[in-house]
Amino acid sequence: MNAPISFLSDFGYEDEFVGVVHGVIARIAPATRIIDITHGISHGDIHGGAMALTRAVQFMPDGVLLAVVDPGVGTDRRAIAARTPVGFFVGPDNGLLAPAVAMVGGADRIVSLEEALYQLPSAGGTFAGRDVFGPAAAVLASGQAQIDDLGPILDPGSISPLLVPLAEPAGNGAVRGSVLWIDTFGNVQFNVAPSDLESLGLSVGDDLTVGFNMEESRVVWGSTYGAVAEGEPVIHVDSHGQIAIAVRGGRADEAFAFRVGDTVVLGRSDGGNRIPLEIAD
Amino acid sequence: MNAPISFLSDFGYEDEFVGVVHGVIARIAPATRIIDITHGISHGDIHGGAMALTRAVQFMPDGVLLAVVDPGVGTDRRAIAARTPVGFFVGPDNGLLAPAVAMVGGADRIVSLEEALYQLPSAGGTFAGRDVFGPAAAVLASGQAQIDDLGPILDPGSISPLLVPLAEPAGNGAVRGSVLWIDTFGNVQFNVAPSDLESLGLSVGDDLTVGFNMEESRVVWGSTYGAVAEGEPVIHVDSHGQIAIAVRGGRADEAFAFRVGDTVVLGRSDGGNRIPLEIAD
Amino acid sequence: MNAPISFLSDFGYEDEFVGVVHGVIARIAPATRIIDITHGISHGDIHGGAMALTRAVQFMPDGVLLAVVDPGVGTDRRAIAARTPVGFFVGPDNGLLAPAVAMVGGADRIVSLEEALYQLPSAGGTFAGRDVFGPAAAVLASGQAQIDDLGPILDPGSISPLLVPLAEPAGNGAVRGSVLWIDTFGNVQFNVAPSDLESLGLSVGDDLTVGFNMEESRVVWGSTYGAVAEGEPVIHVDSHGQIAIAVRGGRADEAFAFRVGDTVVLGRSDGGNRIPLEIAD
Repeated sequence: MNAPISFLSDFGYEDEFVGVVHGVIARIAPATRIIDITHGISHGDIHGGAMALTRAVQFMPDGVLLAVVDPGVGTDRRAIAARTPVGFFVGPDNGLLAPAVAMVGGADRIVSLEEALYQLPSAGGTFAGRDVFGPAAAVLASGQAQIDDLGPILDPGSISPLLVPLAEPAGNGAVRGSVLWIDTFGNVQFNVAPSDLESLGLSVGDDLTVGFNMEESRVVWGSTYGAVAEGEPVIHVDSHGQIAIAVRGGRADEAFAFRVGDTVVLGRSDGGNRIPLEIAD
Repeated sequence: MNAPISFLSDFGYEDEFVGVVHGVIARIAPATRIIDITHGISHGDIHGGAMALTRAVQFMPDGVLLAVVDPGVGTDRRAIAARTPVGFFVGPDNGLLAPAVAMVGGADRIVSLEEALYQLPSAGGTFAGRDVFGPAAAVLASGQAQIDDLGPILDPGSISPLLVPLAEPAGNGAVRGSVLWIDTFGNVQFNVAPSDLESLGLSVGDDLTVGFNMEESRVVWGSTYGAVAEGEPVIHVDSHGQIAIAVRGGRADEAFAFRVGDTVVLGRSDGGNRIPLEIAD
Repeated sequence: MNAPISFLSDFGYEDEFVGVVHGVIARIAPATRIIDITHGISHGDIHGGAMALTRAVQFMPDGVLLAVVDPGVGTDRRAIAARTPVGFFVGPDNGLLAPAVAMVGGADRIVSLEEALYQLPSAGGTFAGRDVFGPAAAVLASGQAQIDDLGPILDPGSISPLLVPLAEPAGNGAVRGSVLWIDTFGNVQFNVAPSDLESLGLSVGDDLTVGFNMEESRVVWGSTYGAVAEGEPVIHVDSHGQIAIAVRGGRADEAFAFRVGDTVVLGRSDGGNRIPLEIAD
């Protein structure tokens, strides 16, 4: 076995952290390919890292998913490896891995990464990507160790969950959701599914009322950006199948002042129906 | 055939976009190498992306050039693949590819990427790098498809051009040009060739008058940065053979307040000749 | 021989510089793997680049270390290759390479990269990464040339040193050091070894007095971040074996307003002993 390692972190691009983990893996498993998903997750942003990993995982080749957003390094949070239908997930057990593991079908084996044989001896205990996670990913990807070799077996159901808010009915033909992700282009993804809007009787081509921060806007539900003129907002199903808002040729985050986690209400705009407004969190 | 893919985009380093395209390519063509040219092109900056691709292309190995700066995604802009003497170019037909294709000798075959067999089925239509361009690059690089398999054949001359301003005589022994590129170190490249200055009777060692933003500066034409003292500006032939201005140990963009697209006049500074001044665009 | 090339620079991620060097290497040595250590070193920051290279080098696979932080490009600074017990170092001879070369055991052969046969013919002389260093790394990694082929042999002891300040006794049970590195998470590394503190009679669990910028703070020496509560500072041995200060769940650089190069005094806090205060440089 020599599977690729897909690697996501919040290490950034200033320091040598990403390169050092690559180096450690290359020394242990020289023939293993590493694919960088991103290392630009905001420092310590477990939610953002988990969402990015979840969006990416179905497009990465089977193998090892190495994910390190680890604000609890140097505390008693567990370091784990989890076996799933698409391969192994390796990272801190702080919620980062849970949504992606669930999406690919769950884990049938989880171990706590405690076996010193598969770790680098470290001066401090603060660079687990280099000393613990990287080596575990390398030996799993290259078949130099089995998952059970890496440490004590944990209850497969014991992986720490991540709370992801769910959309809910808001009354008056509307649904209350929140901002799940703002991408680098300023597109704003909600935790609202197309079926949530369809169940309100809405479909592509309809105008929606977007209630946010005590204001209401009317925005068309288009099939894609081309449904509106340059500079106009559009509700659409984004490339991950979620309801999102974009501004053609612009930034929806700036146009509406959305931030991740903000509450939003989406509803019908027919008949002058007023939807319940929300105050931004 | 298993040629490398050289990949340039404006996807940035925050999100998982670059990694997902790598993943998609790795799943389709596991043995294909991907070389990242850069993903730091300013969002939607077709001109900047085209210039970077043009500067880079002659140094990349033959294979596939995958370039995605695509502000018109989700509209009716065409997605194309073009066959050239150095390999295939894949990207949106919005001017991004044209200068680089022309530089390597032009395309003898262009197709519109419409064949669904070589695309990922997508929820929205807004991540063409993942769903359209990445898969096309992967099958071309690995020989799993021929270019004609990817969609209808277009007129080879129909690739959308990019307007790149040309330098022109400004009278009084001067040439009028514009700022083509400011690099991350603050070096400023003009659309002026050494021959443009030589035809004015200028050569290395001469002082030039730089007219910009209603002001004139006198700057020496040096063979390289070492021709001037620390902190001093120098006109020189840059590493791409273009006339450029730098400040030794400093930033020419800040010293002169240049921005990309600004008009500049370069001329002889002998005899108190006044050159025509320009107002910055 | 086909050894990997580990590559560090200050080229940043905006322009195509990193990709072009990858392309040049791929054209010369198609089977050579390139590992990017980082390209986010601050522009022209020789000290920062040297420290990152020194921290990284022991974790990279044997092969070629290609490092380019080169504010003197286009002047008369030398371009060199150095042979060491772990492989070849290639880069400008401006202090960037010296600490890492020393750490791995020193160089037994140094040459000046002057042989035009192993360089790209260049319009300007300002992109040595592409024209000089990349090609040298490629031919050394792939065995297409021996180090002596690349140019005249220099005195192995002639590599330009980098001055790294040393910690020194400050009297009154204290040591005077300086800030060596602030990482992207805000952790602050000093040029102070655990033995420097131990020789003052200090050990893990003791409170230290940190004297900086005319103020004194009391900070515990913990074994890792978990030794203190969220938001509290902690002195610890970092992942490179150096004394460092962190704030659990926060940024020590901001909490203390440290910058690289600042002087700090660390000492016992017993008995109301006042340590000599320092003014930040």
